Amino acid sequence: MGFREHLEKICSAVDGSVAASVMGFDGIAVDTLEQTGPEGVDLGNLLVEYANILSQVRTAAGMLQTGGVQELIVSTERLTLVARPLTPEYFLVLALTPEANLGKARYLLRVTSPDVAREF
Amino acid sequence: MGFREHLEKICSAVDGSVAASVMGFDGIAVDTLEQTGPEGVDLGNLLVEYANILSQVRTAAGMLQTGGVQELIVSTERLTLVARPLTPEYFLVLALTPEANLGKARYLLRVTSPDVAREF
Repeated sequence: MGFREHLEKICSAVDGSVAASVMGFDGIAVDTLEQTGPEGVDLGNLLVEYANILSQVRTAAGMLQTGGVQELIVSTERLTLVARPLTPEYFLVLALTPEANLGKARYLLRVTSPDVAREF
Repeated sequence: MGFREHLEKICSAVDGSVAASVMGFDGIAVDTLEQTGPEGVDLGNLLVEYANILSQVRTAAGMLQTGGVQELIVSTERLTLVARPLTPEYFLVLALTPEANLGKARYLLRVTSPDVAREF
């Protein structure tokens, strides 16, 4: 199973998914599955910006000795993003509409992450 | 009801709360209620660092037209942080142990935020 298949599996299981990506902390995507997002939102740029934020969260967590980052969730009026680190270099991120089932998204990312990490 | 009373109410309702704060996006706290956090974790510095991250998330959300930030959750091995903006200048943040009930924490922050915002 490749990255694309994992992303497809996640998106098809969570209603309201608008994009899923396996991405480097440097903002360069390994693979991205983009569906139709909210009008005026550039999903590509959003994910790059998000990689940058996650990278800073990780640095802060390291500095403050709170242990490794396991999950980051950002909810905005028009989109919710859920991310989980996969390896020290890569993370998995899912963008959802605000109406989507966040609980299911979190669960799926949690159980899928180890499988996706094994693809590296 | 002052800020301190709101913070006490939140912390006493959520088992596993280690700190709650009403804080400016500039990292200066209006009021902070600190309980015992994980050993070696400087809760004061953690909240300041978190203010900085939330501020960047807000800038990114504005730039990318995803609408206002409603919630930010960061889960690390030793601590989980939940934050909600109160006003354009201030936010409410709760730090929890990883075992705490995140669902209840999110709910309480959501329903308490409008009351806390009215204190300004």
